[in-house]
Amino acid sequence: MTHAAPTAPTASTVTVSTSADREARAALMRAADVGDTIMGHLVAQHGAPWVVEAIRTRTLPPDVQLTEDQEDRPRDLTARLNAWHARLSAANPAADLEAGERSGARLIIPDTPEWPSQLNQLGTSRPLGLWLHGTADLRFACLKSVAVVGARAATAYGVHAAAEFGVGLSESGWTVVSGGAFGVDGAAHRGALVADSPTVAVLACGVDVCYPSGHDTLFAEIREQGLVISECPPGVHPTRARFLIRNRLIAALSRGTVVVEAALRSGALNTATHALTLNRHLGAVPGPVTSGMSAGCHKLLRERKAVCITSPEEMIDLVGVLGDDLASHSRSPAVPRDKLNEPTRRVLDAIPARGGAGPASIAVAAGVGLDATLSALGGLAAAGYIERAAKGWCLRKQRASYPRAAESAVLEPPPVREDVDPTQDPPFPDDDLPDQAGSTAPAYRD
Amino acid sequence: MTHAAPTAPTASTVTVSTSADREARAALMRAADVGDTIMGHLVAQHGAPWVVEAIRTRTLPPDVQLTEDQEDRPRDLTARLNAWHARLSAANPAADLEAGERSGARLIIPDTPEWPSQLNQLGTSRPLGLWLHGTADLRFACLKSVAVVGARAATAYGVHAAAEFGVGLSESGWTVVSGGAFGVDGAAHRGALVADSPTVAVLACGVDVCYPSGHDTLFAEIREQGLVISECPPGVHPTRARFLIRNRLIAALSRGTVVVEAALRSGALNTATHALTLNRHLGAVPGPVTSGMSAGCHKLLRERKAVCITSPEEMIDLVGVLGDDLASHSRSPAVPRDKLNEPTRRVLDAIPARGGAGPASIAVAAGVGLDATLSALGGLAAAGYIERAAKGWCLRKQRASYPRAAESAVLEPPPVREDVDPTQDPPFPDDDLPDQAGSTAPAYRD
Repeated sequence: MTHAAPTAPTASTVTVSTSADREARAALMRAADVGDTIMGHLVAQHGAPWVVEAIRTRTLPPDVQLTEDQEDRPRDLTARLNAWHARLSAANPAADLEAGERSGARLIIPDTPEWPSQLNQLGTSRPLGLWLHGTADLRFACLKSVAVVGARAATAYGVHAAAEFGVGLSESGWTVVSGGAFGVDGAAHRGALVADSPTVAVLACGVDVCYPSGHDTLFAEIREQGLVISECPPGVHPTRARFLIRNRLIAALSRGTVVVEAALRSGALNTATHALTLNRHLGAVPGPVTSGMSAGCHKLLRERKAVCITSPEEMIDLVGVLGDDLASHSRSPAVPRDKLNEPTRRVLDAIPARGGAGPASIAVAAGVGLDATLSALGGLAAAGYIERAAKGWCLRKQRASYPRAAESAVLEPPPVREDVDPTQDPPFPDDDLPDQAGSTAPAYRD
Repeated sequence: MTHAAPTAPTASTVTVSTSADREARAALMRAADVGDTIMGHLVAQHGAPWVVEAIRTRTLPPDVQLTEDQEDRPRDLTARLNAWHARLSAANPAADLEAGERSGARLIIPDTPEWPSQLNQLGTSRPLGLWLHGTADLRFACLKSVAVVGARAATAYGVHAAAEFGVGLSESGWTVVSGGAFGVDGAAHRGALVADSPTVAVLACGVDVCYPSGHDTLFAEIREQGLVISECPPGVHPTRARFLIRNRLIAALSRGTVVVEAALRSGALNTATHALTLNRHLGAVPGPVTSGMSAGCHKLLRERKAVCITSPEEMIDLVGVLGDDLASHSRSPAVPRDKLNEPTRRVLDAIPARGGAGPASIAVAAGVGLDATLSALGGLAAAGYIERAAKGWCLRKQRASYPRAAESAVLEPPPVREDVDPTQDPPFPDDDLPDQAGSTAPAYRD
């Protein structure tokens, strides 16, 4: 055998015992950087034990057959083989497995029951294995899951929104997947924990390394109820590269990703790109245009890469199964006035707020016949819209009995205006329609 | 002649003197409701003087030939003719023209020099005429114009954003078109006035009627510098219907409409619908998802009816002429680190923050050859990224000299975290990448 690849067993014919495979993968997780696609390709082609042996004995030919794109191909494959060899020599996979299991974690590998099959879509950058620490079943937890991602230095608004998504998704039976950072990540997990749901934190360091250290308690709670997972071996600390590569796991594990808050240069946008590459749904939560921490979200919306998401229900609507998970659409609140027929509405519009007008001038002003006007006036009076005045009919001065529309629940109350009659509930509480600024015809202008 | 329509002169053959046409249109503006498409059709077919005469003498046949859709056709055309007749009898167009002109206003009619030809796209709902009060030329002012619309009960955020759009559009030579309400309308006009630009307020009442009365001074300033316009005759007060119909003028006058703040039930969404119907551009300004006053904007974004607009520049980019008005795209800020080549970045990632590591272990951790590592270390030290330590090399403990990225200009400062080294500027100030949480290989973990 002079050429390793053509005669090597293909993925379908690789049959090794699971325990040998686990130990070989644990060794390769030490040898290769996370997301190393050359390594991923070799393992898929030849199986992990064969690759370990080939690196250890330096029998891996430098011109190893790769189906990678030419641009992915490293300029100096030999250097990478040397790096693998150097690291593998220092690795002790059996000790890793023992140390991990002693700490309560477990290593899962592809094609075992707990492996989430959606990770297989990552192709050659599929992780070699995943260390899990926690009580939940990863495959089951991620069947219906949403990635909630965003800025580490989130504003109070972003933290609030992330927690709302954590609670809302969990209460509807969706698992939160996120990183382990401060800000949006932590708030999303806390929301899920409050809702007593499993939540999945994907770390860029070993599952036994607490980064950031301030999340010590949070990670403990996540392990109690959900999972802390990582593709890094125990004891490994995070680096910039590991964070960026970790993001593909967050995107791949979930059906969709929602970016809660992200500046223009944010790791969350990297996760968003992974989600789009993997054909996952992508949502972005808008925020104030005055906040640079929402600029990344707005960019995604502006470029129509993401759907505008304002509530957990809308995210579930995006990722959910048609018929099962549809969110109710935002609807404008209905007011009783909507039910009036056209001539009656015209008559109501023609009735002055003060002074009063007789049926004949109301009919002219409304452009409705006198008979129809008289009939409408009777109905409007009975319904409490108008009342008799000295000079005919005028609008009834009394607070309408229908409840305030939902949009009145804004953060600040609308300013009080002197020229708007406060005793009259505006039928359009939010726009520029007057209650009844005056009568329509000069005949009875007051 | 038993059938009026077939033998009546068509629009192209109608030749009446402008002054007779003006007076006839002034009369019809009293007779018909604003936006009356039957009236618009008749005037287009037969000319205003003919229609006035026909209504006055009741010779307009009830089965007048109309090309309207059947659904637009009123159930009782006779009732409408009677309403026109009753109102026309009470009208005094000569007095209207005199009163209007005495107050300083002027009536313009279609196909005269100041008429904005884009209004002709309204078809049969094109206004019969427009009363203008102010110093600007309407046609010229609206050549490059943007409608800035939104809630009357705007929040402080909406008022701020509207003023920013008023200033920003004006400073780039774009005229603001809006209504005359409190909230977004007023703020947009004020922004334009501050920038010394003409601004156009389209009222739903006569131009001599000040509604809301609190905008007395604002309207006076707009008249000084821009225009207050209306399709209602002098003295007419606003009604709900007039506001909704007025909105088509705001949309039709401008190249695009931006909705700054709108609840789910808002007149601004009505303007947005007109803009879409007229094939004008539509933008929506996002806001906090916790604010019901932005829910209408988010609905437009979610339904992909509107483009996400976060600045006046982005709106100009939307409505502007290619090449003339392109906004600069939001870009993530560049940091010096971006310029490092791949092996140097890997070496930098492998250098511990504390303690120090020798070149050999750095080379293994980085997966880079020893020669390349030594060369990278020299460059990184010269550039100030790293420094010599007792045990080799470590990251340099000193604030980076590059300026903070733009996204740090948020409303609230990001919270201070104890576990992040405050002396080290995070290269990604906003996401969850650590500065350098630790080294990569267990060999020199500290």
